[in-house]
Amino acid sequence: MFLVDSIIDIQDMARGAVLLGTGGGGDPYVGELFVRAQIKLGNFPRIVASEDIDDDAFVLSIAAMGAPTVVIEHLVSDSTLLRLLARAEEHFGRRVDALISAEIGGANSMFPLALSAITGLPVLDADGIGRAVPHLEMTTFSINGCKATPAILMDDSGNEVIVQAVDDKTAEELCRVVTGAMGAMALGAFYPMSGRQAKEIAVQRTLTQTLDIGRAIRTAREQSRDIFASLIQVLEERDGRKAAILFDGKIVDVTHETRDGWHWGRATMRSLTDAGDEFTVDIQNEFTVARHNGRTAAIVPDLITILDRETGEPMTGEMLSYGQRVKVLGYAADAMLRLPNSLEVIGPRAFGIDEDFVSLEELVA
Amino acid sequence: MFLVDSIIDIQDMARGAVLLGTGGGGDPYVGELFVRAQIKLGNFPRIVASEDIDDDAFVLSIAAMGAPTVVIEHLVSDSTLLRLLARAEEHFGRRVDALISAEIGGANSMFPLALSAITGLPVLDADGIGRAVPHLEMTTFSINGCKATPAILMDDSGNEVIVQAVDDKTAEELCRVVTGAMGAMALGAFYPMSGRQAKEIAVQRTLTQTLDIGRAIRTAREQSRDIFASLIQVLEERDGRKAAILFDGKIVDVTHETRDGWHWGRATMRSLTDAGDEFTVDIQNEFTVARHNGRTAAIVPDLITILDRETGEPMTGEMLSYGQRVKVLGYAADAMLRLPNSLEVIGPRAFGIDEDFVSLEELVA
Repeated sequence: MFLVDSIIDIQDMARGAVLLGTGGGGDPYVGELFVRAQIKLGNFPRIVASEDIDDDAFVLSIAAMGAPTVVIEHLVSDSTLLRLLARAEEHFGRRVDALISAEIGGANSMFPLALSAITGLPVLDADGIGRAVPHLEMTTFSINGCKATPAILMDDSGNEVIVQAVDDKTAEELCRVVTGAMGAMALGAFYPMSGRQAKEIAVQRTLTQTLDIGRAIRTAREQSRDIFASLIQVLEERDGRKAAILFDGKIVDVTHETRDGWHWGRATMRSLTDAGDEFTVDIQNEFTVARHNGRTAAIVPDLITILDRETGEPMTGEMLSYGQRVKVLGYAADAMLRLPNSLEVIGPRAFGIDEDFVSLEELVA
Repeated sequence: MFLVDSIIDIQDMARGAVLLGTGGGGDPYVGELFVRAQIKLGNFPRIVASEDIDDDAFVLSIAAMGAPTVVIEHLVSDSTLLRLLARAEEHFGRRVDALISAEIGGANSMFPLALSAITGLPVLDADGIGRAVPHLEMTTFSINGCKATPAILMDDSGNEVIVQAVDDKTAEELCRVVTGAMGAMALGAFYPMSGRQAKEIAVQRTLTQTLDIGRAIRTAREQSRDIFASLIQVLEERDGRKAAILFDGKIVDVTHETRDGWHWGRATMRSLTDAGDEFTVDIQNEFTVARHNGRTAAIVPDLITILDRETGEPMTGEMLSYGQRVKVLGYAADAMLRLPNSLEVIGPRAFGIDEDFVSLEELVA
């Protein structure tokens, strides 16, 4: 167990969450601001390992849903967070024992920490995917039998919607339209589960991973060490998961398009030294596939992140623009995400990419 | 109290409901089919007057929400009706004592009768508007303090959504998008209220009015009496509310358009004897304003209905087509709908018509 009692820690965690957001997941900045204010008040988020809670504990995911551009402009409301918890406890007829992040990548790393800070409820050092994903059905929770619903959605005006869906694809559709009607941003409680489920089907130690990542980037920067070497070292310390810099260059084109409810786009980069050397990253909310001169270099569910080549700061898809000098990082997904039943739901074909999954280890070999 | 134990009665009621639907509200045909099948099985809907229930009875509206074109193709499911009732009783923590129609005009006349037939629960001889309206906030229930939510929406696949909104305009938006995600049709429970509220803020005797209207048209037709004279007589017997034939002619043009979530359109008619004599009816889900050579002849919330000039069969907006010979009926709305607080919500300006309400009595004088 540890308390997040340092502003620097929460900043590091937000930085790490952007990296794991693999271009999507929304910017954690407003959540970070909220938690920083709570830390100044002496209200510290409390993080516990999943193995330290009871098997029959009641665990709930707290997450924002909506358009990243709206989430980033929407201050976190403590009264909405508290109302959501109260309504969830009323609906399920029991006290919530612990919170968990549905997706550690991006903004949803912060909302459980925010609620923890104001209630003292522990947040499990785990999440439902180890990265960011665009849909409710694309989590290790959902894939392994913990449904996203009953889910409770709220806005700051006092509107509440409880969704109970036959499957999580339908849950996604229902929650998405409700979020739209709530002004493109809702705060929600999802994936009610037991402590035992949290131990078995969550991706573990991902909150502390955000801290490790953010801290590694910051300290290497402060100490003028090689940021990317430090970063790769800390990433690979996790179960030996492969990490590699896939490209070094500058952005020469970025396209964005909103279509069929997705944020589509492509970032094209060129080498700083060889104008014929091209690298592309396709965006479908998150970064889905990276190609080096047309050859696949990393593919979903493995993580692709674009970072500023000087500061090592990870960037969301919305931040990309012409002329930026960047490095592209590939990072092997957690082993749970590469299982056949997971790949059916979050593999390339789930995003309409007509390729089989090939691991980063094979691609960089 | 009376039991609807006759196929002819339910057919008459459906016909009357189309007339009160004032062009909208959806076709009651699939609901009628369901109730007819129940009547054949000996399961008779039971209708009681509002004054015959206890003040503290728990009364609930059962209604379909969705696109009329989908509702008409969607068979009524007894299991969904029963699941909706069970879920409502679970959510509110008490037994439902009586059902009430949210809007008597169109398809929603039939759903409470359908649930009554399979459960024996009484349906109050009343509804929330005495006609059809396009939005949840446009009922005498809502206008007089009975909120549409908590509302429960279901589809036949087993998905359920509970909406609790701060106001009924927001409830309308939330329920509408959920209905869309449920395949453009949902069955719902709305406007939880007490028996006392049903007595005070419902439009009374409207279920029996559908029967009176449908029966008057049918018997006059069978007995070769003047259908429209019989119809006007039975309509005016209701509290002396004015009814009048506003035009007699043929449809020369019908436009339809779906925009901003509304079904917009206009039917243009010409006299059979004077080609310069023109009559228009504007459609905004329901018929909103009738104009005779440009002069307002009837305007919302007064009722406008187009009927076949030979058979007296009332028509929904979807049924209108070029060449049909029709009569246009105007009918004074119930006095509750003409009160200033009602006109703010269901008067011409609520539909974007830049005119004050003028009563049918004044317009035909």
